[in-house]
Amino acid sequence: MSLRELRIAKENQGVHNFSAGPCILPNEVMEKAAESVINLDGIGLSILEISHRSKEFVAIIERARTLVRETMNLPDNYEVLFLQGGASYLSIITAQNYLSKEGTGAYVNSGTWARNSMNDAKVFGNIIEIASSESTQFNTYPELKDLPTDVDYIHITSNNTIAGNQIKNFPKTDIPLICDMSSDIFSRDIDVSQFAMIYAGAQKNLGPSGATLVIVNKDKLGQTDREIPRLMDLRNHIEKESMLNTPPCFSIYVSLLNLEWMIKNGGVEEMKKRCLERSELLYQEIDGNPLFEAHVSDLDSRSKMNVCFTLKDSSLNEEFITSCEKAKISGIKGHRSVGGYRASMYNAMSIESTKALVNVMKTFKL
Amino acid sequence: MSLRELRIAKENQGVHNFSAGPCILPNEVMEKAAESVINLDGIGLSILEISHRSKEFVAIIERARTLVRETMNLPDNYEVLFLQGGASYLSIITAQNYLSKEGTGAYVNSGTWARNSMNDAKVFGNIIEIASSESTQFNTYPELKDLPTDVDYIHITSNNTIAGNQIKNFPKTDIPLICDMSSDIFSRDIDVSQFAMIYAGAQKNLGPSGATLVIVNKDKLGQTDREIPRLMDLRNHIEKESMLNTPPCFSIYVSLLNLEWMIKNGGVEEMKKRCLERSELLYQEIDGNPLFEAHVSDLDSRSKMNVCFTLKDSSLNEEFITSCEKAKISGIKGHRSVGGYRASMYNAMSIESTKALVNVMKTFKL
Repeated sequence: MSLRELRIAKENQGVHNFSAGPCILPNEVMEKAAESVINLDGIGLSILEISHRSKEFVAIIERARTLVRETMNLPDNYEVLFLQGGASYLSIITAQNYLSKEGTGAYVNSGTWARNSMNDAKVFGNIIEIASSESTQFNTYPELKDLPTDVDYIHITSNNTIAGNQIKNFPKTDIPLICDMSSDIFSRDIDVSQFAMIYAGAQKNLGPSGATLVIVNKDKLGQTDREIPRLMDLRNHIEKESMLNTPPCFSIYVSLLNLEWMIKNGGVEEMKKRCLERSELLYQEIDGNPLFEAHVSDLDSRSKMNVCFTLKDSSLNEEFITSCEKAKISGIKGHRSVGGYRASMYNAMSIESTKALVNVMKTFKL
Repeated sequence: MSLRELRIAKENQGVHNFSAGPCILPNEVMEKAAESVINLDGIGLSILEISHRSKEFVAIIERARTLVRETMNLPDNYEVLFLQGGASYLSIITAQNYLSKEGTGAYVNSGTWARNSMNDAKVFGNIIEIASSESTQFNTYPELKDLPTDVDYIHITSNNTIAGNQIKNFPKTDIPLICDMSSDIFSRDIDVSQFAMIYAGAQKNLGPSGATLVIVNKDKLGQTDREIPRLMDLRNHIEKESMLNTPPCFSIYVSLLNLEWMIKNGGVEEMKKRCLERSELLYQEIDGNPLFEAHVSDLDSRSKMNVCFTLKDSSLNEEFITSCEKAKISGIKGHRSVGGYRASMYNAMSIESTKALVNVMKTFKL
């Protein structure tokens, strides 16, 4: 079978991929990536076996950085980096680059990953929690009011993948604002100038796991009195244009293909529209179906990416999972820490997959 | 074209890939990886879009860890991890996990990467250089004698990819011995019990860039008085079986395919034989051809993986590069810091590629 036939055969299997991440990517991105794993643009070498300093890979990473810059309308004093380590590693990078020895880092505790970011920073100095919705199992995004004005930075997590909450209006502050945007970047309008740094693990709306996108305001770096390890100082990565050490080449390459796919399909504007359609359709079913209940009741806090819900009667859990499996709905189980169900509907998901899930819910126990 | 036809067409292009890393991998590994980028084992999902906690990926990472364990004959108290960040990041991990606040880390300076490891550790405490061949441009592996007995650890780099030196006999010591084996792992016999930790960036003999293999003696961890950030404490990675955070799934998957290829082809024993054949053939030509000169003259220090040489008459450089290009020899330029030529001949390289290079050298200026 040709690559195209392989892809169509896969599509015909009709699996609906609701995985929380790594997650669905466009099939045409996979097809092109597969071709390049054998032979990159006909050069006689695989994308996996070329030097990161080859002219081919330098062109790939430069184009990926440029497309992020254009898509997000970056001001000139912002840089785009592709690092390794995931969002968890960026918790350390955040503290290393923004927290003074005697300063304070302020965190919004909107979920498990936000809390981890906060706790991981504590080894580096004074860390405070300025808002939290933990006492209600994160069933709302914490209210942000009276933000501190005497801290080194404020850290927020825009979208909670486990409980399914999401911030809708980013706070305005003169304090450097740092945002973990792993799970909703490229699905919403962002005024980057509000942030000192935005970071995102690639494995949701950007690409495969293994790369971490960092968008950083150069002017806000170098303000601390801390001695930063060479590999953790963002200024060094900026200076070396994301090549301080060998980058995760394939993850960056697939991210580039995916950025190109997104732009060809209408860019963030269209992605925003699609994710609104998908999430509205599903929340409507959850709210209207007496068997189900949304985890996040506050309408304004509901995630448009990760819709979390439960069966009111938990004795039906196994039966519902079986119904989902029959309809080829994959990755719908909630995070192991909370149970229930989670429909992660990232940019590459077609509305048909959401409809397939809604249909299972509509016909369940009829 | 089918995947197989694509692969054969690529092979027929006949590019000889001498890249220093990311580098050559077996074409049958690429073919299988490409198939899985579209549809992993026919499950209807790509290797790029499945959760790292799916049963499919858990089986992949477990098998990769098991094959490393078997291939390297690991004692029971050793663990295998796949991390992110590359060998450069492991310099930080080394200091964090083995260097006490008032202790000393001892380094062998055998090349640029060894020196970077040493310098990167200095931010964490007292670091000393115990041997160096820097004054002779690393044209030999530093002599190791009278190793210190009062340090927290000794760090060595087994193979220098830039100057082309390599240690042949690892030192015996009661001090925890840590080795960056990025560029010659799986090409030589290793008695793992001699080491507290071995690490290797995947992008040479293991797989694509983006993953870092760590082999660690559990009993030597937790000996320092340092507070280690959660994500940097190797004990946490061991406890979570390399799933402390989202791993670089595709790099690990291709590493598994490559380990399987290696075992099917005779394992380390056969890889050792092949790399000896390739390097002997090339050194013989360099030593016998009046136009060329090996960078490493000390025979016992010569790398079997990265053969570095120069033209005695540097005015011929451009002409030689043109001759190489005509013969489809790729990636032969020396590291930008030293110039000259570097033939990196990793496990997947066929002897035919070495012969092609030798042939260019033999016929050059005739």
